[in-house]
Parts: sequence; C-alpha cells; structure tokens
Amino acid sequence: MLMQSAQSNGPCHIVITGGAGFLGVRLARTLLAQGQLSLAGAPPASIARITLVDRAAPPADLMADARVSVLTGDLNELLEKKDAVVPVIAGDTAIVFHLAAAVSGECEADFDLGMRSNFAATLALLEACRALKTRPVVVFASSLAVFGDAPGQALPSAIEDNTLPTPQSSYGIQKFIGEQLVADYARKGFIQGRNVRLMTVSVRPGTPNGAASSFLSGMIREPLAGVRAVCPVAPDTPVALSSPARTVQGLICAAEASDQAWGPRTGLNLPALTTTPGEMAAALERVAGTAATALIDWTPDPAIRGIVKTWPARIHAARACGLGLLPEESFDDIVQEYIRENPYAVKLPIR
Amino acid sequence: MLMQSAQSNGPCHIVITGGAGFLGVRLARTLLAQGQLSLAGAPPASIARITLVDRAAPPADLMADARVSVLTGDLNELLEKKDAVVPVIAGDTAIVFHLAAAVSGECEADFDLGMRSNFAATLALLEACRALKTRPVVVFASSLAVFGDAPGQALPSAIEDNTLPTPQSSYGIQKFIGEQLVADYARKGFIQGRNVRLMTVSVRPGTPNGAASSFLSGMIREPLAGVRAVCPVAPDTPVALSSPARTVQGLICAAEASDQAWGPRTGLNLPALTTTPGEMAAALERVAGTAATALIDWTPDPAIRGIVKTWPARIHAARACGLGLLPEESFDDIVQEYIRENPYAVKLPIR
Repeated sequence: MLMQSAQSNGPCHIVITGGAGFLGVRLARTLLAQGQLSLAGAPPASIARITLVDRAAPPADLMADARVSVLTGDLNELLEKKDAVVPVIAGDTAIVFHLAAAVSGECEADFDLGMRSNFAATLALLEACRALKTRPVVVFASSLAVFGDAPGQALPSAIEDNTLPTPQSSYGIQKFIGEQLVADYARKGFIQGRNVRLMTVSVRPGTPNGAASSFLSGMIREPLAGVRAVCPVAPDTPVALSSPARTVQGLICAAEASDQAWGPRTGLNLPALTTTPGEMAAALERVAGTAATALIDWTPDPAIRGIVKTWPARIHAARACGLGLLPEESFDDIVQEYIRENPYAVKLPIR
Repeated sequence: MLMQSAQSNGPCHIVITGGAGFLGVRLARTLLAQGQLSLAGAPPASIARITLVDRAAPPADLMADARVSVLTGDLNELLEKKDAVVPVIAGDTAIVFHLAAAVSGECEADFDLGMRSNFAATLALLEACRALKTRPVVVFASSLAVFGDAPGQALPSAIEDNTLPTPQSSYGIQKFIGEQLVADYARKGFIQGRNVRLMTVSVRPGTPNGAASSFLSGMIREPLAGVRAVCPVAPDTPVALSSPARTVQGLICAAEASDQAWGPRTGLNLPALTTTPGEMAAALERVAGTAATALIDWTPDPAIRGIVKTWPARIHAARACGLGLLPEESFDDIVQEYIRENPYAVKLPIR
C-alpha cells in the first residue's frame, strides 16, 4: 500500500542549492537514507533523484550514490543559462531546498556580493520555479540573523513567532527579503513556500570559519581533538544553539508539513537551546574531563563580544513546537551527538 | 542669519518620483511655498530646484515655477539610462521623495508589473543614490498595506510601531521589501533613509480610481458636488484615514527629522483617525445637510467589504506622536479642509 501511494505521487526529484555545504551534505545523506519524502502533506513519494548544486563538489559517498546528480558552478550563472541542457530547476523538480548563501561576514565586507548571492540568486531561483507552473515546494533557509538589536529598538527578552525582525546586517536583510519573496510567490500560487529560520548550529564538524559564531563549535570540537581553542566571550553570555541533526530535522519537517499544519507564510523560528559558554564547557568536562576544558583559552575579544551580544539568546518557538520540533534538552546531548557522529575527530579519551 | 545658514548648507535640489501624482503635486507645492527645507536635522537650506519625475506632466502652476524641472518617462527606463544628459538622480541631489509606484490593484493583476515598478525601480533608485557617494536623504513612501490579516495570524486590535507586517498583497510585499532595502542602504551609510508608512488618504480630490478604498473619498467628494456616491460597506465598519495635508506633513517631517529624532530604520506608521462610514456621513451632514447625505447609496458590495475588513483600522502611532505628528481629531476637520481647499468642487450650500 505504501509503495502504491508513493508511486501515485510519482518518484520525487529534489534540488538542494548549497548541496556541497555542511548542511546540504547532511540533508542529502538524511534524505537518501530515508528514501522517501512527503511533499507538503502528500503521501510519501520515493526519492528518485537529488541534484546538488554548489560551487564545490560534494563528498565521495554522495557522488557514488546513483540517485545523486551534481551541478557545479556559481548559482547565479547557472540560473542565468535558461536554455542549459541541465538547468538548475529541471521540469520534474518537486522540491527545492534553497540553502546556498554568502555568509554574514562576506556580505558585510562586500555589499554587492551579498546582493548578488543572497538576493538576486533567490529571486532568479523563484522565477525558475514559477516558470515550471507545477507549484514546487520551496524550503528557504532563512536565519536567526533577521533579528538584531536596533538603535532605539532593543530586542525583547525572548523571540516570539510574531516578533518584528529588525536585521542589523546585510545578510539578515537579504534573508528577510528572501522570506518576503517566498511568501508572495506562495500566496500567488507560484510555489508552495516554507520560510525556515535556522539557528546557530553547534557542534559543527570540520575547521573554524570566519563567522563570529565559529567559536561556539570550536570551543568543543578543538579540545576534543586535543587542540587549543579560544572562547572570546564571558562564560555567562547567553547563546541560542541547535544541533546539526535538529537543524536538518527542521528543514525536512518544513518540506513535509501540509500548508495547514505549517501555518502562516512568515518565517518560522526553529527551536534553540539557550545555554552559555560556561555551561557548554561544563558539559564538555562531564564527557572528556579537565583534559578537554584545560584546552579552552578564555580570552575576551571585544569585537566578537560586541557582535554576539546583539544576537537573540532566547527563542520561544511555539509554532515549531506545534509541529513537533523541540530544542535539545541539554548541551550534553549535543556534545554526545557530535562524538557519536565524528569519532575520527575525537582524540581525547571519553568517559 | 537665516539666509547665511541656508547658504552654508548650499541650495537644495529635491527629486520627487511620482511627482505629477496627487501626493507628489501637493508635496511640491508645499515645499515651494515654504521655500526651504531642513535636511535630516541640518539648518534650513533654500530650495533651489525640485525635479518632478513622472510618466505624466505636472499641473501648469508647477511647470511655471522657475525652480521646477520636469523629467517625463517610465522611471525604470529613466534610471537605466545611466549616461543620460539629465539623469534622475543628478550629482547635486540632496533628497529624494520616492513616491512613484504601481497601485495595489495593478500589482495584484500583473505580478511582473509590480515587481518592475515597485521593486526593481526602488533598487535602481537606491543604487543611483549610492553612486553619488554624498549620502542623500531618501524618504520612501511605504504603506499601511504592509499589514494584512494572514491565515492563522490575525492582526492585533491596534497596530503598534513594532507590529510584525504580514503583507497579503504583492503591493504590500514590494513596499515592505523596499523598506528593508532603504534600511540597509541607510545602515551601510549609502543614504540617509526614512521609511514612512502612509495611511489611506481621505478626502482625495478629483475622480474615483480603481482602488478598493476609493469610496472613502468618493462618499464625501461626490455628494458635495451634487453627485450620487456608493458606500459599499456597513456604516459601522472601522477605517483608518489621514487627510492629504497630514500625509504631506508626515513626508516633510521624515525629511527634516534628525537621525536621532527619527529613531529606528524600520518603517514609521503615520497617524490615522479611526472612524466609520457612518461617522463620516454624519460629519458630512453637519456641514452640508441631508441634501448631501441623501446622495449616498448604502449598497453593500461583498467583494469590497471582504478587502476592507482585512485592513487595520486602529493605528497606535507612538513614534509619529513623538515627532509631533498627530491624527486629525475628527472627520469634521477633514471635510472642512477638503471644502476649503477645493471650493470649485463643492456645488451644495455649506452651513
């Protein structure tokens, strides 16, 4: 019966922009493992193809999967080639996860780059989806960065579903504009839109990046690898975090929820655990001892502290909760998930 | 001394897009009459030139003023001609009032038209201002249409300064995106930005237009001219209105307020008088008797009623109040202003 109902929806072609990035790769692996996807409340359809669009090539395990296609290049340039043999949005595209973006630091340093990568690319992608005339599902990865302390307009103590975004970075503005475009393309019936605001992800595997939030992964990841790490903010600074697994769960939930269950077209805040670097270090010590926490240098950096304190630290994600999306209960769970998933990256003995 | 301080700021060149429209013309006349303008808190500067940009030519009195220049054409096309002998944004432009827009009905019927006229034109205008490298003041005429009853997300009983906009029309989305662009161009120091949300204007002189709100002027204007008019909603339907004079006052206040007095870069809701068609008719009767109100046909139109009931009817405009911008105290004042300003259009005897 399940097989039949999947077939009645046809095999499903999924496009992931930013598909070679950290979240794109994890999302693709999760989807391939589950093998099927319910599109906006429809019965599950088998996943026939996943197209990963990115500047870089994805990891070998994804390249080796017969269901995976790869489209390598600049997203704007790929979308401009409307008569390409392999377009970004092929005629059978059922769903697009739009994760590709220039990150906040880049957008602040190079305004035109951000407008091109985050704004023009999103508009061109939506136009390509509209041209299909099949109303594909578009899951747009927005960001907690739509919220920022504005001069004369401080953030409330907790972010609610209807808190007014006041972005204080070009990245945040571009993400918020993307939400508006997705909302109106959905209202007009050009797409089925899902605006999802991602939280700061921790613990992110790999190497440090240029983001101001990089330390929120590094202060756990580096000590576990036996490497020194810096925490540039005070131990009692509140921060809102989500694990990689919960973040991908949120993206898939957005794809699968019916229009009715999803609710308003405004951005949905994913849940986040409110913690502090002090509590994070304590959780690290519980699993890896003082050998790990001795590797953390508590070296204040006023520039990073200044940025971090403008981020909302408490998210009251009632809409997400109604969809069954909950934050982790403790940072201990997040550390243990990281260790379980990245055994090769852990050099210290674990209790 | 005043002359000297005006000169120390240099003579001021003002650009008004939509400058031949109802509000653009009134704004230009008001500015020419006052002869000077304080730019964002600076000492008053004399108005040397006002450039009116519009598809249509402005009225003869403006054409005859030596300080007025006219640029006629499609705003997008004019902005695309970057090497034009007379560019939209000349090098000495100190301030732009960006009023030009396709109206809500047009944008809903023709999505691409709205994206071009309201979205692409605003972006191109901001880029032209940025290219000056002189940080001109940009007053962006946004709209109450950024607010709309969303499925599963009803409007609050009164709109506050920090109420989350949930636009339910392409026009509202495009205006809200314009606000975001103006906010970020201002934050980056490319312009001095002022996002002003205009209310429904009544009593608008002239002839009925295609807007769903047209009756809110017509039910006063037409009876005063001895002509029958229709009110398509129930007499007790709450509506939020502002007079033409208060609307232009709001635009000029936005131009003159210092960054500090203006406050956040998010849109500022202008004040509005909450009234009802029943109260409006009573005000009309007080000045023009039952001869006027007998010309109103109370003929319900479910389509218009359906649109009007999604509009916010109560605006708690605290920020505007702090700048000295207040709503009219009664609709009687608005009717009397219309009669005073448009004597040629009043055929019935006035008490």
